[in-house]
Amino acid sequence: MKDRRVARVSAVVRNEGFWSREDEVVIEEPLEIRVAGEALAITMRTPADDRALALGFLLAEGVIRNLADVGAVYPCGRPGHTRYGNAIDVIPGPGVSLDLDKLDKTRRVGITTSACGVCGRDAIDDLLARLLPNEDFTPIEPGLITRATGLLGDGQHVFARTGGLHAACAITRDARVLAHAEDIGRHNAVDKVVGSLLLRGMLPRDSAPADKAVLLAVSGRSSFEIIQKAAVAGFLCVVSVSAPSSLAIETAQSLGITLAAFSRDARFSLYSHPERVTGGQLAAPAVPA
Amino acid sequence: MKDRRVARVSAVVRNEGFWSREDEVVIEEPLEIRVAGEALAITMRTPADDRALALGFLLAEGVIRNLADVGAVYPCGRPGHTRYGNAIDVIPGPGVSLDLDKLDKTRRVGITTSACGVCGRDAIDDLLARLLPNEDFTPIEPGLITRATGLLGDGQHVFARTGGLHAACAITRDARVLAHAEDIGRHNAVDKVVGSLLLRGMLPRDSAPADKAVLLAVSGRSSFEIIQKAAVAGFLCVVSVSAPSSLAIETAQSLGITLAAFSRDARFSLYSHPERVTGGQLAAPAVPA
Repeated sequence: MKDRRVARVSAVVRNEGFWSREDEVVIEEPLEIRVAGEALAITMRTPADDRALALGFLLAEGVIRNLADVGAVYPCGRPGHTRYGNAIDVIPGPGVSLDLDKLDKTRRVGITTSACGVCGRDAIDDLLARLLPNEDFTPIEPGLITRATGLLGDGQHVFARTGGLHAACAITRDARVLAHAEDIGRHNAVDKVVGSLLLRGMLPRDSAPADKAVLLAVSGRSSFEIIQKAAVAGFLCVVSVSAPSSLAIETAQSLGITLAAFSRDARFSLYSHPERVTGGQLAAPAVPA
Repeated sequence: MKDRRVARVSAVVRNEGFWSREDEVVIEEPLEIRVAGEALAITMRTPADDRALALGFLLAEGVIRNLADVGAVYPCGRPGHTRYGNAIDVIPGPGVSLDLDKLDKTRRVGITTSACGVCGRDAIDDLLARLLPNEDFTPIEPGLITRATGLLGDGQHVFARTGGLHAACAITRDARVLAHAEDIGRHNAVDKVVGSLLLRGMLPRDSAPADKAVLLAVSGRSSFEIIQKAAVAGFLCVVSVSAPSSLAIETAQSLGITLAAFSRDARFSLYSHPERVTGGQLAAPAVPA
């Protein structure tokens, strides 16, 4: 079967001389996300797992709250048409009316804000208006955090071929990977993981302790939107390979999420709720550098 | 003066034991971009160069075409207010009426598209409707491409402190850097570079050959939007440190831009218009791997 995520192209490589060769690159195509026929957003994504992407996106934005809100999810148009698969429609469940105004302010156009615009604190307050901070303080072993990057890398098959994608995965306390996704967009990879868990009734917020994905691992950096998506799904901990932003840290702190970053080998840094990590509450003051 | 781009935070580092320490992280805050008081978009960005960011964004989207379209650019509100600086208003120049419907379809909500949504080719056709392909085929020396990554890195001062930002810069044929920007968002860094050139009347499309920035260097990967922004500004060549996407390649091919990627040490790969690079037109077929 043709892999919808990878294209073969011709490249000219300069390495001492110039050489022609065939190369594999990751596919980027727009996906229009619709609710009951109305276009809500267009995201540039790597095709595959589009149903999960749409549902994960709508869950994070507060447009849907659970699978009962969803009647059907289907690609618009007819197979074979050139545009088939680039628009996906989410039909509300029986008797459900979805409030499209819930779509997060950072994506909307023509919104009404105060004279001075929005600030990071407003974005956090919007989240707190619909979520309670996570109060599950069952300890997380540091060894699980150090294993997360490896588990993430194990599933990065398209990255290995193209070097062009981000990845995200959901990990349980006993280091099982419940969902893994790759995408050209970091946010899309997280939406695909969350949407896949939602479709299978396995969101952390809805799961019993033994089967709960507690950790969301992401390649690259952690920003506000990554923490927003993790919070809505109910993850206890986000692990990013690279740096966090100021707003990611403030959001994780406010929403009760442990944020680990720069996770490489056996080393990582905790930027919020270190007390949830076994040993983290006992941190010794550092010797001044 | 306080650096608006960096925050000091407390972190707990796990490295054999657990240690408390102070750490620097990059600041992420929303910026609302308005035209004549109407909010067009909110982008999560690193504060600094917000005027350039707003103008670069509006130029890429086709809302403004040149500096004559702009009367004033100013932050809304009053200095000292908590939200001051998170909204910026662009006032049209005398007698100018800006068409806000020009805002690129991928950012708009409530757009009308065909039954099957948009596809990558539509995005390219939208660009070709307002731009001619770049037909300046003055050769580019391969040595300039190999130097680009180093020139980009030389200006990554906030990255060196925080590990949390992307960067972009504009480079002339004689390896002068005319603009350099860092931002938590790759697209924002490019908008800041393009906006900064626009504000100084130095966009490549408006410059004489001796003073023209020909190369746009970007950290990370190259996607559709990076090529879109480079094309509107008039760059001949985009150099990215990491991988290109399929749609970036198709867009660069259609718009007459040379796309170099995986630029590291003296090696790089050309994915479109290799004939513009001295020696690239003579590429030897590779020995099969």
